[in-house]
Amino acid sequence: MRRALDLAEEAALAGEVPVGAVVVRDGKIVGEGNNLTRTCKDPTAHAELVAIRNAAEFLDDERLTGCDLYVTLEPCPMCAGAISHARLARVYYGASDPKGGGVDHGARVFEQDQCLHRPEVYSGVGEAEAAELLRAFFRERR
Amino acid sequence: MRRALDLAEEAALAGEVPVGAVVVRDGKIVGEGNNLTRTCKDPTAHAELVAIRNAAEFLDDERLTGCDLYVTLEPCPMCAGAISHARLARVYYGASDPKGGGVDHGARVFEQDQCLHRPEVYSGVGEAEAAELLRAFFRERR
Repeated sequence: MRRALDLAEEAALAGEVPVGAVVVRDGKIVGEGNNLTRTCKDPTAHAELVAIRNAAEFLDDERLTGCDLYVTLEPCPMCAGAISHARLARVYYGASDPKGGGVDHGARVFEQDQCLHRPEVYSGVGEAEAAELLRAFFRERR
Repeated sequence: MRRALDLAEEAALAGEVPVGAVVVRDGKIVGEGNNLTRTCKDPTAHAELVAIRNAAEFLDDERLTGCDLYVTLEPCPMCAGAISHARLARVYYGASDPKGGGVDHGARVFEQDQCLHRPEVYSGVGEAEAAELLRAFFRERR
């Protein structure tokens, strides 16, 4: 999660909403990313999607079986769907996102009967720092 | 939708689940894609995401304001989330997907209070052909 928080901070410096994500297999980082929606002009370039695509490319496999995702913010429905498609084993997220989250709020993607793969989910990991990065970012923009 | 169906057929020929998608602005195609999850070894490469990213790149804008999406299958939660992030105005989809859809089934992403942008949704456009492509694909694989 330390690396994910550093990636979130890099995103903030680039003017992006500070979210970072890392994919880990057997204790090693196999993919990482931060929010790049503005930089790449790509509405799908959330940290999780960037990290998942990065890991799939690195491992040369569309299924990230046995991999874990560390992300500084609760994934949105798009990212939760991608996590399920990628067959990630575990998700550790930092700050809760009542306004945009799709794991423990709103669409609750993993709780749907039709969800074919449900990762284990652990919330609140590095929460204080992740939330402070987001608060500072939006405070500066106001 | 004719182009989206042709793209779905191309996907089937490549051994991919046959789904095609096209982004249209002012009557012109500005982005397109088909399902490439196996070919690209990318779990996020659903037709809609490929088409949205293609359109955002072509228009050099992360917001596809005023654009419509034509897709042969009901979008999953991941793709529904991406459609909302991309600010697409309208979604026309072909076949309904009770097992994997996230628009009129399961997560119902656009119906959540927290969904910041809801496109108009029209279902059943080119449904018979879209569904037959999928049936034929899975029949052959059994």
